[in-house]
Amino acid sequence: MEHNIDLSGYSIRTDLAVEAHELAQQQNESSISGVWLQADDSEPGIQVTRLHVQTEEAGRQLGKLPGHYLTIEVPKLRDNDTSIEEQVTKRFAVEFADFLQKLGITEDKKALVVGLGNWNVTPDALGPLVVENLLVTRHLYQIAPETVGDGYREVSALSPGVLGITGIETSEIVFGVVEKSKPDFVICVDALASRALHRVNTTIQISDTGIHPGSGVGNKRKALDKESLGVPVIAIGVPTVVFASTIVNDAITYLLGHFGQSMQESKRAFNKLAMSTLPERKEPYTEEDLPDMESRKTFMGLVGSLPEEEKRQLIHEVLRPLGQDLVVTPKEVDEFIEGVANVIATGLNRSLHRAVDEENSASYTH
Amino acid sequence: MEHNIDLSGYSIRTDLAVEAHELAQQQNESSISGVWLQADDSEPGIQVTRLHVQTEEAGRQLGKLPGHYLTIEVPKLRDNDTSIEEQVTKRFAVEFADFLQKLGITEDKKALVVGLGNWNVTPDALGPLVVENLLVTRHLYQIAPETVGDGYREVSALSPGVLGITGIETSEIVFGVVEKSKPDFVICVDALASRALHRVNTTIQISDTGIHPGSGVGNKRKALDKESLGVPVIAIGVPTVVFASTIVNDAITYLLGHFGQSMQESKRAFNKLAMSTLPERKEPYTEEDLPDMESRKTFMGLVGSLPEEEKRQLIHEVLRPLGQDLVVTPKEVDEFIEGVANVIATGLNRSLHRAVDEENSASYTH
Amino acid sequence: MEHNIDLSGYSIRTDLAVEAHELAQQQNESSISGVWLQADDSEPGIQVTRLHVQTEEAGRQLGKLPGHYLTIEVPKLRDNDTSIEEQVTKRFAVEFADFLQKLGITEDKKALVVGLGNWNVTPDALGPLVVENLLVTRHLYQIAPETVGDGYREVSALSPGVLGITGIETSEIVFGVVEKSKPDFVICVDALASRALHRVNTTIQISDTGIHPGSGVGNKRKALDKESLGVPVIAIGVPTVVFASTIVNDAITYLLGHFGQSMQESKRAFNKLAMSTLPERKEPYTEEDLPDMESRKTFMGLVGSLPEEEKRQLIHEVLRPLGQDLVVTPKEVDEFIEGVANVIATGLNRSLHRAVDEENSASYTH
Amino acid sequence: MEHNIDLSGYSIRTDLAVEAHELAQQQNESSISGVWLQADDSEPGIQVTRLHVQTEEAGRQLGKLPGHYLTIEVPKLRDNDTSIEEQVTKRFAVEFADFLQKLGITEDKKALVVGLGNWNVTPDALGPLVVENLLVTRHLYQIAPETVGDGYREVSALSPGVLGITGIETSEIVFGVVEKSKPDFVICVDALASRALHRVNTTIQISDTGIHPGSGVGNKRKALDKESLGVPVIAIGVPTVVFASTIVNDAITYLLGHFGQSMQESKRAFNKLAMSTLPERKEPYTEEDLPDMESRKTFMGLVGSLPEEEKRQLIHEVLRPLGQDLVVTPKEVDEFIEGVANVIATGLNRSLHRAVDEENSASYTH
Repeated sequence: MEHNIDLSGYSIRTDLAVEAHELAQQQNESSISGVWLQADDSEPGIQVTRLHVQTEEAGRQLGKLPGHYLTIEVPKLRDNDTSIEEQVTKRFAVEFADFLQKLGITEDKKALVVGLGNWNVTPDALGPLVVENLLVTRHLYQIAPETVGDGYREVSALSPGVLGITGIETSEIVFGVVEKSKPDFVICVDALASRALHRVNTTIQISDTGIHPGSGVGNKRKALDKESLGVPVIAIGVPTVVFASTIVNDAITYLLGHFGQSMQESKRAFNKLAMSTLPERKEPYTEEDLPDMESRKTFMGLVGSLPEEEKRQLIHEVLRPLGQDLVVTPKEVDEFIEGVANVIATGLNRSLHRAVDEENSASYTH
Repeated sequence: MEHNIDLSGYSIRTDLAVEAHELAQQQNESSISGVWLQADDSEPGIQVTRLHVQTEEAGRQLGKLPGHYLTIEVPKLRDNDTSIEEQVTKRFAVEFADFLQKLGITEDKKALVVGLGNWNVTPDALGPLVVENLLVTRHLYQIAPETVGDGYREVSALSPGVLGITGIETSEIVFGVVEKSKPDFVICVDALASRALHRVNTTIQISDTGIHPGSGVGNKRKALDKESLGVPVIAIGVPTVVFASTIVNDAITYLLGHFGQSMQESKRAFNKLAMSTLPERKEPYTEEDLPDMESRKTFMGLVGSLPEEEKRQLIHEVLRPLGQDLVVTPKEVDEFIEGVANVIATGLNRSLHRAVDEENSASYTH
Repeated sequence: MEHNIDLSGYSIRTDLAVEAHELAQQQNESSISGVWLQADDSEPGIQVTRLHVQTEEAGRQLGKLPGHYLTIEVPKLRDNDTSIEEQVTKRFAVEFADFLQKLGITEDKKALVVGLGNWNVTPDALGPLVVENLLVTRHLYQIAPETVGDGYREVSALSPGVLGITGIETSEIVFGVVEKSKPDFVICVDALASRALHRVNTTIQISDTGIHPGSGVGNKRKALDKESLGVPVIAIGVPTVVFASTIVNDAITYLLGHFGQSMQESKRAFNKLAMSTLPERKEPYTEEDLPDMESRKTFMGLVGSLPEEEKRQLIHEVLRPLGQDLVVTPKEVDEFIEGVANVIATGLNRSLHRAVDEENSASYTH
Repeated sequence: MEHNIDLSGYSIRTDLAVEAHELAQQQNESSISGVWLQADDSEPGIQVTRLHVQTEEAGRQLGKLPGHYLTIEVPKLRDNDTSIEEQVTKRFAVEFADFLQKLGITEDKKALVVGLGNWNVTPDALGPLVVENLLVTRHLYQIAPETVGDGYREVSALSPGVLGITGIETSEIVFGVVEKSKPDFVICVDALASRALHRVNTTIQISDTGIHPGSGVGNKRKALDKESLGVPVIAIGVPTVVFASTIVNDAITYLLGHFGQSMQESKRAFNKLAMSTLPERKEPYTEEDLPDMESRKTFMGLVGSLPEEEKRQLIHEVLRPLGQDLVVTPKEVDEFIEGVANVIATGLNRSLHRAVDEENSASYTH
């Protein structure tokens, strides 16, 4: 989870394709072409959304790379309820196995799981925590292949740390390790930022587009994707934080929307009144005929929808005392992260190794 | 840090007296009688506020018990800078020693420091973390008093845990321990909730009113104060979380304030225009003369300040998707808590024991 | 786990009754009267020993208080194997429920579980770790008794910390809390010292004699037992450390034992040879007839069993470079402690609450 | 810290060159040629030993690779005393800077610090803990070199994890990262095994021979040294564990040594007595003339020094109940590791960056 925080060029920020799609639709007030979307709520309490960004153009509109995105949303995942966690684990394992199959990744392919993020920052520790609970087998295949039973796959894992701890770009470390250990595909697990508080710790996103941290001028950090690593890269992400500015933005947007209708009515009333003050004539007056009164300008400026630039300015004002744009996480972050890391690690163990199932998978996690 | 989360009876929530005072002043649009306030910004970068709630009535208006509140605000405390932490430690030690002296608590008085909160929940672990880093001496006075040098005080410490872990009210545990160990005064350290993101992890509050968790019908939890424990209770608190609803509330309040002036102008313009449509007469028209036009009513409804009830409703709408009122903390909570716990522990070690100074205090913390 | 380390008055130290009994038998070379012992190895891989110290005199001989001691020994518990941990959990739950029943502690009796030890010292963190994973219910009975289903018991829990952290005797804290929270019985969980490396982390001891830390002149620490607390106290202990001196002692003892037989043979050969040098006579010579030759004295001094005093001296010599008597724990202590704490917490949850069984007990631990 | 535990080919195991040298001298009863040794106790309480294994042959005798070994021994380091830790930090920084200089590693050379070991196993977490507290600068040189002041060096750091967590040989990970990040030299920090309890957590070894984990047939793990990585590799190690078998071995060796003299006397007495039983003759009898009596054979077998094979067998017997050869660590391992990791991290920060000194170095560690 690495973010460029720069409010001067403020834009609503999300790592989730479903959120990017929602936003793009709101702004376009029409559906985006080149995007295929399927919502699956066949299982009560679990919403699965499959999104296919099919063209470069659609990708630009969404701010997401072309590729497949699968989102599992479970509002109750935040309740820290063991039976719900088991239910989500089961579904995640099925969906992930299916995702691999559609990419043509068969059972004999060797996986490297990369746990991105900083283990010292609780909301960023998801990746390293998943790695700690994986069933890792590559060394057995290397040292004593005859001891590995049927139904297992060669799996290795790595938590490369973050730039501030290592001084080395994560991508450089992963490149080096991929070259030496030669996996057939890479799975990256990372904590994400969402724009909605309600998605924090309730949503898991799987995608085949890899990881592309940050962007913009001067950013020398390289992506973790098929192009850079030479093998398919599947990203698994869970939103664990939101920008405080997002919460403020939502509040302002909602407020303006709320006032919308009565503002339109007021505007019409004002104009009708203003027109009634003009000298009578045959053809009815229209709003264009109204003189450019100062009072009217003020009023129109008020009730018109707030332009983006001014909205940004407002958010700035509200957040100014912070001196920075704070990223926040729910107070209960410790147990959320532990719970969802367990879901993903157990789910990966089951979908990567045929021999691991609901009966025995608990043995492999802590 | 125990909060009753109940949005149906929503009110702006803060554990900080300075915030309660600010709010009360905003709502009253006048100063509150029975409150003495002194702002001290003699030291660059550090704002110290001394607030004395002098009467029961003033206490009711603020929602804070009568007593003394001292607040140390250091915006840069969040920068994780060792030299600023040392500066704050120094100031905290001085202020706390002064606070004790004003309460008549002399050097020979025995202290029990209680670290409230849940060590498993990072933003709530402040109290237990402070306790871990205290210079505790009571056992030396009990077992081998001759080994204790001059300049030390009898200090004991306890982290009682939270109700969900122990099943016992914190107050019951502390009562029991106070009865057995017989301290002359009690210091309670706790994580607080603020209503402003910018106060999180930048503010330390000292008060002589004790701790009063929650309130309302059915709450059987007892206070930790002089009345209940029989000895003076000094509370030290640091806001580590905010309610998401507070951020939304601030955004809405700011937005309405922002619109305030132009709304007033528009209102006047509308009324002037409306008056110009009335038949001429000698005495100038006032707003009271304006007919009760529907359009005008709509307009007035809009630009009038939003009533509290409607504001609450709006906040509800914005936060509805959460299904609950989330409490949030900055992403960097782990290092914030560690840093501020170190400030308080070291500061307490210095102000409780004359023999501990800037030279040697690092030896007592981890 | 609090030990008086004092080699000058060295004695083989153990917190386990079965070890004390073994030692006493070795030294007495006969069975001790007033001790009832039953070994139960009906379940493969698990050795259960029930020991009843029936008299004060037997207690003195063993260095253990009169009472009931139940020991569960599972050598494979150290293998960190989930299925073995589940098997031991099951057995522990059965044995503990049975132990309670024999003491007349019925289902309606309220329990307070005390987790003794220092959470910062891994091999001493067993008690606090068990407390973290208990199903605690007392607050529900206090606040909303109607919400508690059938099959549960009122359980509270406390980790009082250690003297070095709190400055208050553990017993004082527990006394205070027992007076306020009024449990019907107390369960104390503590890490123990064993004299055998192979018992570390493989053995669980249950007893009805309470906890009696340290002993000797100047020790003001009080016991945690029925006499002091006024309610029955059941102690659960797991050896997590051994004294290095114990390992040395075992080595020396074994070595001397090993040499025993051949030494006896040599002694006889030497004497036979010596007797053959004496002038012939009618009655056969016995060893008493041998002259007090210097060489023979030396030899006898050697092969005779090493007296206790000299043995102590030897252990001193071997351990001298340490400057102290080190207490050691296996390198893998972190995962051992976590595993066995989970066994005890889950076992307690099942045996204290009828409604918790093998199906659902995982939900209550982390 | 990776050890092949195989008692069948038991040999006294140590990672410390000074111990290997001591042992080799004991066994040879003469000094080893090709070894240069300098003991420096100029600073009270600190023993510095510089050992140069100059030839392959000397290396074989010691079981250590040819190269330079520097050992800092501070018995009081185990006392957890802040002022001693600061003293050792100071000395370590001086010695390490000197060690670099002698290797021709100048201030402009880029360092990669590798923290070997398993962060989940406290006595093996030294390396990762040191890495967490390093002042890492490489990314600053890469992204914004103009912001880096004078007196700093390009430093990066990595905790690669252990085979059981990653499934990838540590050496493969380090190779990959060295290739990508191109340091001029590598510093490996690792926890070691000692053969003496008193060296655990009191000794720091610096060497220029790199790291060579394990050995023997079938071991595919590669070394971390100049040959394999292409750049100089400096190893920093602290013994944090001992094999229980070492403690037993020491006890047995000591015991046999203790008995040595009186055994020799007894042997002579026995032989003298035996000779006196032989028929008189002119030439005095020697021991060779004694008949091959069974009793004498037994006796000689006993008092002769115990052959290595039999000693191994004895150790086996003593440790048999364990089913394995346990590796032990002092009970206080948590705070030992934290203290010594802080010494090494702070010392490295000072010796790697000229701009970091005693005044400001505390700012860089946690």
